[in-house]
Amino acid sequence: MKKDHFDIPKGMIYLDGNSLGPLPSKTSERVQKTLHDEWGKMLIKGWNQAGWMQQPSSVGDRVGALIAAPKGTVVLGDTLTIKVYQALASALELNPDRRVILSDSGNFPTDLYIAEGLLKTIDKGHELRIVEPHEISNALNEEVAVLMLTHVDYRSGKMHDMEALTRKAQALGIVVIWDLAHSAGAVPVEIEKSNAEFAVGCTYKYLNGGPGAPAFIYVRADILEQVQPALSGWLGHNSPFAFEQKYRPGAGIERMRVGTPPIIQLAALDAALDIWDSVNMRDIREKSIVLSELFIREVEKCCSQLTLASPRNPEQRGSQVSFEFEEGYAVIQALIARDVIGDFRAPNIMRFGFTPLYLDEVDVLAAVHVLEDIMTNRTWDASEFKTRAVVT
Amino acid sequence: MKKDHFDIPKGMIYLDGNSLGPLPSKTSERVQKTLHDEWGKMLIKGWNQAGWMQQPSSVGDRVGALIAAPKGTVVLGDTLTIKVYQALASALELNPDRRVILSDSGNFPTDLYIAEGLLKTIDKGHELRIVEPHEISNALNEEVAVLMLTHVDYRSGKMHDMEALTRKAQALGIVVIWDLAHSAGAVPVEIEKSNAEFAVGCTYKYLNGGPGAPAFIYVRADILEQVQPALSGWLGHNSPFAFEQKYRPGAGIERMRVGTPPIIQLAALDAALDIWDSVNMRDIREKSIVLSELFIREVEKCCSQLTLASPRNPEQRGSQVSFEFEEGYAVIQALIARDVIGDFRAPNIMRFGFTPLYLDEVDVLAAVHVLEDIMTNRTWDASEFKTRAVVT
Repeated sequence: MKKDHFDIPKGMIYLDGNSLGPLPSKTSERVQKTLHDEWGKMLIKGWNQAGWMQQPSSVGDRVGALIAAPKGTVVLGDTLTIKVYQALASALELNPDRRVILSDSGNFPTDLYIAEGLLKTIDKGHELRIVEPHEISNALNEEVAVLMLTHVDYRSGKMHDMEALTRKAQALGIVVIWDLAHSAGAVPVEIEKSNAEFAVGCTYKYLNGGPGAPAFIYVRADILEQVQPALSGWLGHNSPFAFEQKYRPGAGIERMRVGTPPIIQLAALDAALDIWDSVNMRDIREKSIVLSELFIREVEKCCSQLTLASPRNPEQRGSQVSFEFEEGYAVIQALIARDVIGDFRAPNIMRFGFTPLYLDEVDVLAAVHVLEDIMTNRTWDASEFKTRAVVT
Repeated sequence: MKKDHFDIPKGMIYLDGNSLGPLPSKTSERVQKTLHDEWGKMLIKGWNQAGWMQQPSSVGDRVGALIAAPKGTVVLGDTLTIKVYQALASALELNPDRRVILSDSGNFPTDLYIAEGLLKTIDKGHELRIVEPHEISNALNEEVAVLMLTHVDYRSGKMHDMEALTRKAQALGIVVIWDLAHSAGAVPVEIEKSNAEFAVGCTYKYLNGGPGAPAFIYVRADILEQVQPALSGWLGHNSPFAFEQKYRPGAGIERMRVGTPPIIQLAALDAALDIWDSVNMRDIREKSIVLSELFIREVEKCCSQLTLASPRNPEQRGSQVSFEFEEGYAVIQALIARDVIGDFRAPNIMRFGFTPLYLDEVDVLAAVHVLEDIMTNRTWDASEFKTRAVVT
């Protein structure tokens, strides 16, 4: 749909936009502008003259538009891990009499790790309760303070029913956090309509913000003024430049800012977001399903050794397809060697992301063709050691 | 000393490198390489092939060298505010039976705010005790768990005696954190020799890493394995790509990593650090004192309305000079309008940074000449409203 908006190496079929999106063609020019015309020429004045100081919110609103969040409810900064910490600490404060955080084994580990660390710091006998994804609904009860889930499972691509789970959880007095890492730019999300209190996500996957692009946090508008930030940094202060000794939370979503924003990364992200001005998320979703269905059908036709690890029903899948195979790591390496880029997740998951912005049916068929050749002729190195994989 | 290594606009005298360093000439080329040759060509493979995954430590070691930290004790990431949180949470854990954090009114507010937020989360009756800078030594006692100070006061430029205070504090069983925001690249720091347990700092001031460049944290080598990170993110896990459900801290300083590192900002910082390969911190310091002394002498000669707010003894000053003046904000605006860039800190502090990498005596005299003209002819707009200043 927008293939010419990206600089993808000739011959490469990139099925890993669910991990790191490719370089948009206009990113470089925009970053150069920030380096030379802003930092280089304005120096310290760039904070005001170039609008740097407002970018976490102004670019945040652009990300917010992609998840149907109203203006003033999304802010950028830090990493997704930090944003999970902020959301979780604030969510627990909204439910001070309960002691359980409920999550599932399909949540990305950093969300679970950060919960573990926060609970150790709080040290009030909370429990992080981790159940299987399909058990979540039944595990909701009045012990639970916070439900914290990743919307689309990073391994299987299975998508939770955001609205239904949020509704059930809130009816039981549970505060809800959605991690949209694999959703923003991948599937239509209506975060305000879901009524969830918090959402977080990253911008280097489907939003193509570049390696280490800043994360985002959403807070439901009506609770913004109640939220007391745990990471009370100076740029989340009501008047950062008054240099007061006591912290006073900033207005609205501004309070979820922490430290000095990463202006060069923000420039790259802002450029990448331009692409979304002329596409419709529903078209993206429709096309993503077409590509994923084609991939599943063709792979199952040619490669019976592989077992589908994603839901067969496209309505229950994000924008990725996973297959299980014992020697999946080695097969992924063989694919990469032939310029078909997917990735591997322990213990046996081969992941393929389908991003209609820069992929079409021809790419999907070409990728399957290579995979078929590898599987048929067993041209992978089964001795390939499962060393470090690549970033989620 | 290295003026040709920076792209400073012609005619500008930049005395604000203590807030945001200027653009090094080679930054742009290096960032382009990361965008095109790494992200653009390698895409997800960049994490391994381009060494992105190691950069928080490998570039961290380069920053460490500038504060005399041994390899493997400094890591980059996040913002200074987050790094303060990490250091403080870990420091408190090392001293679980005490309940006071001691700091001073010269500490940068974000350090105080983040302590306030952390203590609220911990909720065990800790006290954040803030005294005047000169009272710190006498305020050290066996109630104090952690001494947390900024080495060089962001307003006055007054420098604490790092070694003496650390020695006295540690003799009383106090864990010590130094914030080196205004020290790294400005004055010689021997962090290992100081014996302090923790240090943190930023890289966008004297290290010229660019707006929003990542922060650093140092942990003394012998306690690294004891430190249990409060912000237990997946990239601080022992085996991030095993995707385990439970957090296990990474080896050594790696555990102080949190989330996905900002690769584009790291590229800019890495380029800026090249400049330091061929300069000696003691030469920088010597020259910085020459420039600061010249500035003070000339300003006091021409502008009797201004009162020195920095220590007169250069040994007690960082690499900045501050003057007090009631209408300081307006005078700074008048200076900026004439391309002499200093900054203002409420209520009445005019700040000027002296960075020998790109400033010499001619610049200092030219700056004083403009200041003298403004003060003599009163060509500032006293009605100028004290709105937002620029970033520290």
